[in-house]
Amino acid sequence: YNPSFVYILNENEKNFNSIVFNIYRVKYHNQVVKMGSESDDCKVMIGVDGGTTSTVCVCMPLLPFSDIHNLPDPLPLLGRAVAGSSNFNSVGEDVARETLEKIIAEALSDAGVKRSAVQAICLGLSGVNHSKDQEKILGWLRSTFPSHVKLYIQNDAVAALASGTMGKLHGCVLIAGTGSISYGFTEDGREARAAGAGPVLGDWGSGYGIAAQALIAVMRAHDGRGPQTKLSSCILQSLGLSSPDELIGWTYADPSWARIAALVPVVVSCAEDGDQVADEILHNAVQELAISVKAVVQRLHLAGEDGKGSFPVVMVGGVLGANKKWNIGNEVTNSILKTYPAACIIRPKVEPAVGAALLALNFLMKETIANDHS
Amino acid sequence: YNPSFVYILNENEKNFNSIVFNIYRVKYHNQVVKMGSESDDCKVMIGVDGGTTSTVCVCMPLLPFSDIHNLPDPLPLLGRAVAGSSNFNSVGEDVARETLEKIIAEALSDAGVKRSAVQAICLGLSGVNHSKDQEKILGWLRSTFPSHVKLYIQNDAVAALASGTMGKLHGCVLIAGTGSISYGFTEDGREARAAGAGPVLGDWGSGYGIAAQALIAVMRAHDGRGPQTKLSSCILQSLGLSSPDELIGWTYADPSWARIAALVPVVVSCAEDGDQVADEILHNAVQELAISVKAVVQRLHLAGEDGKGSFPVVMVGGVLGANKKWNIGNEVTNSILKTYPAACIIRPKVEPAVGAALLALNFLMKETIANDHS
Repeated sequence: YNPSFVYILNENEKNFNSIVFNIYRVKYHNQVVKMGSESDDCKVMIGVDGGTTSTVCVCMPLLPFSDIHNLPDPLPLLGRAVAGSSNFNSVGEDVARETLEKIIAEALSDAGVKRSAVQAICLGLSGVNHSKDQEKILGWLRSTFPSHVKLYIQNDAVAALASGTMGKLHGCVLIAGTGSISYGFTEDGREARAAGAGPVLGDWGSGYGIAAQALIAVMRAHDGRGPQTKLSSCILQSLGLSSPDELIGWTYADPSWARIAALVPVVVSCAEDGDQVADEILHNAVQELAISVKAVVQRLHLAGEDGKGSFPVVMVGGVLGANKKWNIGNEVTNSILKTYPAACIIRPKVEPAVGAALLALNFLMKETIANDHS
Repeated sequence: YNPSFVYILNENEKNFNSIVFNIYRVKYHNQVVKMGSESDDCKVMIGVDGGTTSTVCVCMPLLPFSDIHNLPDPLPLLGRAVAGSSNFNSVGEDVARETLEKIIAEALSDAGVKRSAVQAICLGLSGVNHSKDQEKILGWLRSTFPSHVKLYIQNDAVAALASGTMGKLHGCVLIAGTGSISYGFTEDGREARAAGAGPVLGDWGSGYGIAAQALIAVMRAHDGRGPQTKLSSCILQSLGLSSPDELIGWTYADPSWARIAALVPVVVSCAEDGDQVADEILHNAVQELAISVKAVVQRLHLAGEDGKGSFPVVMVGGVLGANKKWNIGNEVTNSILKTYPAACIIRPKVEPAVGAALLALNFLMKETIANDHS
């Protein structure tokens, strides 16, 4: 393993899904000769982040275990690929499987390494909630990768947590994008989640939840059930509609959650302009998001018996991003710190797919140590 | 027109969609010879109630205008047919059109009368919200019925109102089934509606809304965000699931609103057993339903300037039906009467399709009188 990579910043890759993170691409192709006499000697790890709307796959060199607690900064990235959703609940199993197989092949191709170089793969996939989900995905990949390649299947929230803890499975992650979920792990491997069940089951702090509440407020103002609000004119204008009645057809026309969640900036803008209804919707969302984190922390006793212990809280997703005045992420942070003053709030600097790759490294190390001791 | 019909009670037809009403089938076929020398002399009116889940069509003899304020009791019914949804928003235009054409033909066939006997048709259809919706449906039927046949297209809420007012377009109707809507008319023809925009746009007092809130409460109890509730065990048992986690897959598997709304009896039963969470959900639903009626009454000034005037409030739909102890309909009634003490609460004794037919008669009479005066 040769640490003297040349890192080249790729500005276009700095902003994905409204999360600001830093991805540095290794000019690996020029350096590969330094790694050994044969390029076949190179070993890589793969991380996949399969969200509801897109899938990202990264290929990184297999870092030495000794680096785990002192990772190189920036992290070496060999290849990267992006595809559509790989959530089998929404796109179906055939499409999900094809997407995953293709995106891994593309990331390897982008990195210029062979499939035989892969030592470990960690997939963080939305839609994976049960062990039988994990077994299904394992079955898909096992036919492509020989048995010595380590495969780890997790919920996409786990990859997001790892992107903040740099591969360590400890603490709580809050994701608030189109959907929302809190997911936590103790250091001894217990886990718990809250929310993340979709809009029907009430993820009210999510982007979908915020925007849906705003649409409801517009309807209520229109038919006399609720107070007037700036949301009415702002939302209609942003959708190119002339009357709230037309919102009925608009919502029927396409049930996509992301399409509704895209209205969040309008709600934030109305709240920043002093609209009481929009302000209340955002305050409720902050409360919902904070409650979902606190439920996980409480169940796992992450803050210890006295609630004063320190633990990581990783926060990701467009809803938690910075705005002009109304900063949902900061409000959630304040609410969490009020209850757990020693919580360590982390905004990840790498994307979840990199978190998944680091997770693969951690899992691999634990397995290796366990085997050495047996 | 010969009033000496023989009415035969058909017990099987007494209960539809949890609304108790009385339908009496006329043994018309034995009597038709009394109506004139030729069966061609008979004239009929057609009423259609196109809800979200099913469509009902009735064929009735064209009553003399002089009967309108003193309708025969029971009402004469010649034929009746039932079909699936005719809401073009949910089944598409082709299926909706075919369903409507077929169900009218079936009702005529059931009545044993020819298409040429039809004088007026009133369709109360869910999904009809704009004049362009009305024009579309008119276009479909006009190709089948000659220009002297009067065609009236309304929202299905209007037919439900008419089923309580026996064809008079005055007052407010509250429908709380799978969805919910309030719809009102003044005697001089102004109209207003509230809610009825579907679950995304927050029909929280509806059957879907009640059941969705219950599912959300189960998830919150499960992951620590909310209090424990009997709803958890009762809902899981009724769905044959073993863990709240499985609710996620269950809701993803089929987005049908009616499937979720079918859980309302479980919620009512838990509330009757003293469960606080279920009780609060039902109280919120009562408030939402009452607010939607009050919003319409207020906008139309149905209770006059002092709020003391009398006006009909027609209440229909399974959610408002009687239960053991927790009677949602009675609670809504109490809330309405608290604000509008002279409101006349009506539980219809005939089904909405009959309301639509009576509406056709009223429209026809108004047009005839207007023409006579011109």
